[in-house]
Amino acid sequence: MNKNDFNNISVNLIGSGNLATHIGITLNNNGLKINYVWSRNLENAKILAEKIKTTYTDNFTEIYNNKAIYLICVPDSEIKSIAKKINSENSILIHTSASTNISVLEKFSTNCGVFYPLQTFSKNSKLVNFKNLPVFIEYSNNNVKNILKYLCDIINAKLIIANSEKRLLIHIAAIFANNFTNHMISISNEIAGSNKIDFELFKPLIIETLDKITKINSIDIQTGPSVRNDKNTIKKHLKALKKYKDFAKIYSFVSKNIQKMHSKL
Amino acid sequence: MNKNDFNNISVNLIGSGNLATHIGITLNNNGLKINYVWSRNLENAKILAEKIKTTYTDNFTEIYNNKAIYLICVPDSEIKSIAKKINSENSILIHTSASTNISVLEKFSTNCGVFYPLQTFSKNSKLVNFKNLPVFIEYSNNNVKNILKYLCDIINAKLIIANSEKRLLIHIAAIFANNFTNHMISISNEIAGSNKIDFELFKPLIIETLDKITKINSIDIQTGPSVRNDKNTIKKHLKALKKYKDFAKIYSFVSKNIQKMHSKL
Repeated sequence: MNKNDFNNISVNLIGSGNLATHIGITLNNNGLKINYVWSRNLENAKILAEKIKTTYTDNFTEIYNNKAIYLICVPDSEIKSIAKKINSENSILIHTSASTNISVLEKFSTNCGVFYPLQTFSKNSKLVNFKNLPVFIEYSNNNVKNILKYLCDIINAKLIIANSEKRLLIHIAAIFANNFTNHMISISNEIAGSNKIDFELFKPLIIETLDKITKINSIDIQTGPSVRNDKNTIKKHLKALKKYKDFAKIYSFVSKNIQKMHSKL
Repeated sequence: MNKNDFNNISVNLIGSGNLATHIGITLNNNGLKINYVWSRNLENAKILAEKIKTTYTDNFTEIYNNKAIYLICVPDSEIKSIAKKINSENSILIHTSASTNISVLEKFSTNCGVFYPLQTFSKNSKLVNFKNLPVFIEYSNNNVKNILKYLCDIINAKLIIANSEKRLLIHIAAIFANNFTNHMISISNEIAGSNKIDFELFKPLIIETLDKITKINSIDIQTGPSVRNDKNTIKKHLKALKKYKDFAKIYSFVSKNIQKMHSKL
């Protein structure tokens, strides 16, 4: 698979959300022509299409092409119905979902693949750097494998082969590393704010925490009452969290888990 | 309180752990003479004393001085017994604990204070930068207040007055922001490792997550199945976490809390 082969294949971007935006712009920046942006939200399709200088639609009949690549970047729950709508058994269906089995696509085409970049994407953040970014791929045949390899190559991503079962576990680990890490900061912010403590004061602590996490194994740098098994302090904290029932529950569970994990070391 | 006043006061550093090390070195670097390092572990006292070019001891009678400042940096559970051992009612007792009420010291001296820097300290990490670091202080009289203010001034820390009740809540918020954030990464590492997924692959995701957290309000950047209330994906994840009972519990709780917090926005 090289650039000339690709020039003869239509590439359609299905979706106009966070992931579609970052992937679409990155592929386009690296010289890959996207033929269509499809979105059920025509306004969003237009915004993305303008960024990557291409056409847009909310109508599948318009982009019907039996040999096209459909790069499906839609919410997990919509992948199946989108694949069904594409309804062209020789087309190449590629989804980008961590937790969706490749088998969802296999009912609709013999050429299926998964392209899952391990990253967090927000539409309004700066463009994600795909250079050396791990992209986990899965495929139903070597033709699709070559296409996925080409896509990774042109954006300089790090291709890794992983089946659907493994990808699901990668997603779970990513949720802890990203969403849950982020939520611990949100809880901290909420506790501070509701007690009239300026959360800006926590910035140096957060920056130091994050700096350590990226440089040192997090297990080796844990501090605080939980890892010291300082029962008296933990008791005081749970008492002070009385009016924050959910936070108290999370405190208690996470604290116990810290003790458990570290007692095994 | 100025440098000359301070030159006539003995400053004793009680403890030789993470906090004692960073505070001791920083005060010394900024021209404050520490007279003694006391630690019940003489070897650790020696290591720290050598770093700040002073003497060390594990014997309280040796450092007895009715007018000295005792900067107490020991585990919370030992503060009371240390204050009792110092046994000199006119001395200035200052502890550095977030979750210990100032009243613990008030039984042993009329001159009590708290000096709590909002930061994470590890002995073996690079020296913490105290410039603009929030230091929460509390004091039993203005003499102690002036001493605390002087200590903050010479290290360029940001002095904030907070009573013991507020300091406890600050500590809880700090635990979520630091210890629990860090533990989410440890869980991620554990899930990846036990499934033979190289955790190095998560580095770009973690760096992006942390970069966003320091720049944007964490509540505004939450992504993932929890905030989307994607029940199907969450169900798949809880099933996949079957052999990690504790992690499944944490996943379930934190996920529900994300939904709850965001549904209120």
